[in-house]
Amino acid sequence: MAWNESSASMTATPSSDGPRGNYDVDYVIRYSFGGPDRQEAISQLNNLLQTLAGVGFLTEVRPCDRTSLLVFIRAPQKSLLRATHTSRVRDWLYGLRNTQPDGDSSPGPQTDAERLRVIYYMLTAPADHGGANITPKFGKWKYVHSLFPLHDDKTNQAWIRDWSKKTFLTNEDLDQIRDKFGEKVGFYFSFLQTYFKFLFFPALFGISSWLMLSYYSPIYAIVNCVWCVVFVEFWKRKEVDFSLRWQVRGVSVLSSKNRDFKPESEVRDEATGELRPVFPWTKRLQRQLLQIPFALVATAALGAVIATCFAIEIFISEVYNGPLKTYLVFIPTVLLSSILPIASTILTNVAERLTDFENYETKEERDVAMIQKMLVINFITSYLAIFLTAFVYIPFGHAIVPYLDVFRATVRPFVSPEDEKTIKHSEFKIDPNRLHEQVVYFAVTAQVVNLFLETGLPFILQRLSSKYKQYSEEKANAQDKGSSAYEDHPDEVAFLKKVRDEADLPEYDTTDDLRQMAIQFGFLSLFSTVWPLVPVAFLFNNWLELRSDFFKICREFKRPVPERADTIGPWLDTLGLLAWVGSITSPALVYMFHSGGLDSDGTPGKITGWTLMTIVFFSEHIYLGVRYAVEKAMQKIEMPSIREEQIQKILLRKSYIPQIDEPQFDKEGSDLASDVDTDGVNEKITRATLEEDARARTLHAARASDSFWERQKNWKESLHIGSKIIQSYQSPEVKKHN
Amino acid sequence: MAWNESSASMTATPSSDGPRGNYDVDYVIRYSFGGPDRQEAISQLNNLLQTLAGVGFLTEVRPCDRTSLLVFIRAPQKSLLRATHTSRVRDWLYGLRNTQPDGDSSPGPQTDAERLRVIYYMLTAPADHGGANITPKFGKWKYVHSLFPLHDDKTNQAWIRDWSKKTFLTNEDLDQIRDKFGEKVGFYFSFLQTYFKFLFFPALFGISSWLMLSYYSPIYAIVNCVWCVVFVEFWKRKEVDFSLRWQVRGVSVLSSKNRDFKPESEVRDEATGELRPVFPWTKRLQRQLLQIPFALVATAALGAVIATCFAIEIFISEVYNGPLKTYLVFIPTVLLSSILPIASTILTNVAERLTDFENYETKEERDVAMIQKMLVINFITSYLAIFLTAFVYIPFGHAIVPYLDVFRATVRPFVSPEDEKTIKHSEFKIDPNRLHEQVVYFAVTAQVVNLFLETGLPFILQRLSSKYKQYSEEKANAQDKGSSAYEDHPDEVAFLKKVRDEADLPEYDTTDDLRQMAIQFGFLSLFSTVWPLVPVAFLFNNWLELRSDFFKICREFKRPVPERADTIGPWLDTLGLLAWVGSITSPALVYMFHSGGLDSDGTPGKITGWTLMTIVFFSEHIYLGVRYAVEKAMQKIEMPSIREEQIQKILLRKSYIPQIDEPQFDKEGSDLASDVDTDGVNEKITRATLEEDARARTLHAARASDSFWERQKNWKESLHIGSKIIQSYQSPEVKKHN
Repeated sequence: MAWNESSASMTATPSSDGPRGNYDVDYVIRYSFGGPDRQEAISQLNNLLQTLAGVGFLTEVRPCDRTSLLVFIRAPQKSLLRATHTSRVRDWLYGLRNTQPDGDSSPGPQTDAERLRVIYYMLTAPADHGGANITPKFGKWKYVHSLFPLHDDKTNQAWIRDWSKKTFLTNEDLDQIRDKFGEKVGFYFSFLQTYFKFLFFPALFGISSWLMLSYYSPIYAIVNCVWCVVFVEFWKRKEVDFSLRWQVRGVSVLSSKNRDFKPESEVRDEATGELRPVFPWTKRLQRQLLQIPFALVATAALGAVIATCFAIEIFISEVYNGPLKTYLVFIPTVLLSSILPIASTILTNVAERLTDFENYETKEERDVAMIQKMLVINFITSYLAIFLTAFVYIPFGHAIVPYLDVFRATVRPFVSPEDEKTIKHSEFKIDPNRLHEQVVYFAVTAQVVNLFLETGLPFILQRLSSKYKQYSEEKANAQDKGSSAYEDHPDEVAFLKKVRDEADLPEYDTTDDLRQMAIQFGFLSLFSTVWPLVPVAFLFNNWLELRSDFFKICREFKRPVPERADTIGPWLDTLGLLAWVGSITSPALVYMFHSGGLDSDGTPGKITGWTLMTIVFFSEHIYLGVRYAVEKAMQKIEMPSIREEQIQKILLRKSYIPQIDEPQFDKEGSDLASDVDTDGVNEKITRATLEEDARARTLHAARASDSFWERQKNWKESLHIGSKIIQSYQSPEVKKHN
Repeated sequence: MAWNESSASMTATPSSDGPRGNYDVDYVIRYSFGGPDRQEAISQLNNLLQTLAGVGFLTEVRPCDRTSLLVFIRAPQKSLLRATHTSRVRDWLYGLRNTQPDGDSSPGPQTDAERLRVIYYMLTAPADHGGANITPKFGKWKYVHSLFPLHDDKTNQAWIRDWSKKTFLTNEDLDQIRDKFGEKVGFYFSFLQTYFKFLFFPALFGISSWLMLSYYSPIYAIVNCVWCVVFVEFWKRKEVDFSLRWQVRGVSVLSSKNRDFKPESEVRDEATGELRPVFPWTKRLQRQLLQIPFALVATAALGAVIATCFAIEIFISEVYNGPLKTYLVFIPTVLLSSILPIASTILTNVAERLTDFENYETKEERDVAMIQKMLVINFITSYLAIFLTAFVYIPFGHAIVPYLDVFRATVRPFVSPEDEKTIKHSEFKIDPNRLHEQVVYFAVTAQVVNLFLETGLPFILQRLSSKYKQYSEEKANAQDKGSSAYEDHPDEVAFLKKVRDEADLPEYDTTDDLRQMAIQFGFLSLFSTVWPLVPVAFLFNNWLELRSDFFKICREFKRPVPERADTIGPWLDTLGLLAWVGSITSPALVYMFHSGGLDSDGTPGKITGWTLMTIVFFSEHIYLGVRYAVEKAMQKIEMPSIREEQIQKILLRKSYIPQIDEPQFDKEGSDLASDVDTDGVNEKITRATLEEDARARTLHAARASDSFWERQKNWKESLHIGSKIIQSYQSPEVKKHN
């Protein structure tokens, strides 16, 4: 019953499209048995396959490499329908859907992403929800290395080809991304596309500003700050629009359990009666306070590293003038490139352990907390160097340089003592172009290098490593003759090669890409006053970025498990914060460097401390006022999906209204409300109703107020009395007339 | 059929409690016929009574005074039940209730407030909603002067007596206020009570600070700012708690139409098919931009008035030294007290017309817009004088005084030219205690005076005016013999006198009281650094304020129509803004006036501009960081009602879960999910299901992927293959062993 026996004759279609190209495989488990204990591996495999069959999946097993095998999983139609229905009922209960799903006629998954998500839920949900409870690399499933879907290569390539030809992605393209990869990835590309479209305005304005206005123009700074505010507020609104369009608004109420959560105790919930693991929020709050010293330590550590390398660089490039200068200039770069990643990694590990210590209940909270801690590290590594140049080196350079002689120690290993004595220190001049060069470097060179490191280099490395793997496998197979009996069926060779390649890829997470975009936006907000062509450079970069990121997901990562999201998460607050900080740095830069602020030799001439602080004070508060106004204005703009949702709510209400307006009156009278504006008096009906009321009243216990209410038995009597009152109080002249 | 004929013998109960004391009257309409056209008044009265009867109300008419009569309205039980049910269904459709109200067994109104609110809705709703569509003083109902419920005097007095004896109101007391007066009034008193409780901390800290720390102590300033932040964030959370407790959370979705709305056009809504009056939001946005010039003009106008009076006062009290000084000192006070109210009134009218011009669709939006415009006027009239003293007079007094000679003109009308020549200007000395005196005045004297003006004076005036009215009516009645035939029935004399008195009272609005509290809180936040006993004074004042405000509502205003609200409205943002501004002024005051900052003669010695701005900069941003942290911390605190709501949601979900977990399997197999962790293999069931699947598959069209999926027909075959793979790839040492 080896799989290489040919079964009943089937027409082999070598290159098919869509799922057929993937043989209808939904998920693949990579099961690694590489440890010493093979018997346990086999018995766990037994468990795994039995569990999968128990939940209703079909399975196939193929070898992967010398230490792992592949388990292909496919969900038959009936289980899929049941899981889809369960998922939709859960959505309805949590308020994500407006209409209760109908159990019997519930259609299957509408999109690829929904299908994969539902099946993933079936695979990983706890047993009491009907799932298989498979947790890769955790607990009893520690041999399960990973669980991933397969890429749909044909569609991916078609999209890459299509998007390379056009400038803008349409809403339908974004919908297609969401249909294939899920809402979380969809939101990332929507954000990238919106950001790209918005960049046209500052790019055009930047070009005209660069041509026509002076350096550090205040007009450009104001327009830049306002643009940042408008973009962030617009994106918030667009997020809501997309989340309604994709029907995921409010999806954050559904949270997945954090498997590392260590509860302190279990409490029986008094109302629902279930046992809830709890961890007191007061304790967590205390642990969260540790973030403050962490942030301070991170700032100090990274700041010291960067400032030291910066000072060394100033020393060597502008003070030192001895031998080997052209080579020694690279010392600080080398130092920075070696120390900084180490420091960042150490701090990242500390952040991870701190986040685990804070013991969050849900995975979403944990991820957000982790991102927030990393923000400090990200900001410092990205922006501190330019901050130092702009606000320390140029204004205070002359005061600091004499202290830089201490860095002569860094030169000593390379220069002999005799040569060192002959060093002449040139007269120190502040280089005002330094800031400009740094900004251009970040905007252009660094972006290109990043693109290569992010997309190009891993691609090359993966090709090389897969070739090496292939080579070493063949060598091992040649040595070990007995195991060459496991050969792939000729029909499946190409497919299995693809799967094996994909199994070696890492897993994708939008966090890194969003972080990169947030840092880029921050740079635009904080420093683009220095060089107005920054948005132009970013415009080109982002056109490439969108397509290269898609290529990266398709070729350098496993296909991501579709996740739902209704926002880009904590990065939205980060963008707002960066726009805010931009309103502080931009006016400071303009004031300090605008022509007239600094003389040509760079000495700060006419700037005073209190003017600077006052300008910053007013600029920041005007920014906050503008942000408030833009926020209010944005809420008034009607996005199509929001209007759509309002209409649905109105329709839902209207379907009930006939029941409300149904007049419920006694059988003798008709609808009295229709008599409201008629002048003709319908005596019989009103008297009948009121007299019935009067009769009803007398049936009840007599009340003291009845004496009051029976003086005028119906409205006509009241009218009679009222007319008499009115007429009796006429003015005397009128009375005299009558 | 005059009402003074005695009807069937009823036991007269002269002083009854609760509604019986009000003869079960629900609402009273004051119908004024005082114009020349009596015939039209009578015909409109005809309409009114017919309308009321048509909707199902019982009516009685009594005279009020020479120009108006009273129409007493009572809702019979059946109409009341129908109206209550309608109101609850509307709540349910808009998401305010969790459970759909049951039409047949819907109980009557639970509280007095709900009863009055529902009846008011019946009286004022449009005809297509089943209401009487009575709009006082508007349209065809212009003779309807007012529409109001009657005070429940016995309960009111009981509460006043009860609360005078205790310090704190309990949550049950607040619930009682809400049951009688509605949620809007309830929220005001809840806010007042929470503010009062919170004031104990700064009061105690202020006393100890006043005793032990120096003037303008930084410690006190920091504690004060943090307290303001914590209070505002705590109140936000408490608002949610109360709104859940009173089941009004989210009630702002229900909006009442603004009757002054002038739509530009009517649009047929494409989805619902109804005609909607629309006014394009772009036009409204443009009109709203007019707020900016309005704010600037108001600031300039009021600022000029106040600054001028301030300057005159400085001149006369500290520079001028001639005859009549003690009397002339009052000139600026007189000027201010006469000009400022006029200016405020003019600006308020402009604000009203501007708000009408902005053409809001709902009454709620309009009220909020009006409050926002008034904020500028409020802040300037309340705080500018002290700002001038603290930040203009004391730091820059010496530089400004020479320019004050221009105000000699104000003295001239009172002093003869000969005397004026003999004026000697004393040597100008800045009076550093001026700021202190102003703060003490505001905190103590002004509050007492306000209390009297707000509560005491109107009470006295109303007594006087009602006595005068009685006197003039008796005089007119004596002249006009014919109309003395309308005498009240002896049983009703006291009651009708009460109603006539109440009909003359104005209508109550929480806005003015909330404004007063917001201004007070702002003063505490901005200026309490000057005198640490400010919170102590406010503590006493607020204890009185709560009880005097309740007395005021009961005796000096008509009983308010109960309105629902889930927040104190735009005042919440105002409090946050004031706390923010406090984080700017407090460090500035501390820095400028802390001992060592100013010499004894008031000349600013050691303060520098940039130090001041830097301190303000850091203090403000630290404040914002603290506010963010407090906001996050507050969200973690579990309020009882919020926990309650979560439990209800969980229970609602659980009631559906049995339907989900019901395993739906084919008839041959049992619940396969229960086989998940058993080691024993239940071959028959799994094979049966899979084979059924296999059979099902072959019934469908053959697919290319079937060749893949049929190589291992069930999980046991997969396991067999997998085991072989694992064993074949064993490490060489192990293989050698085997």
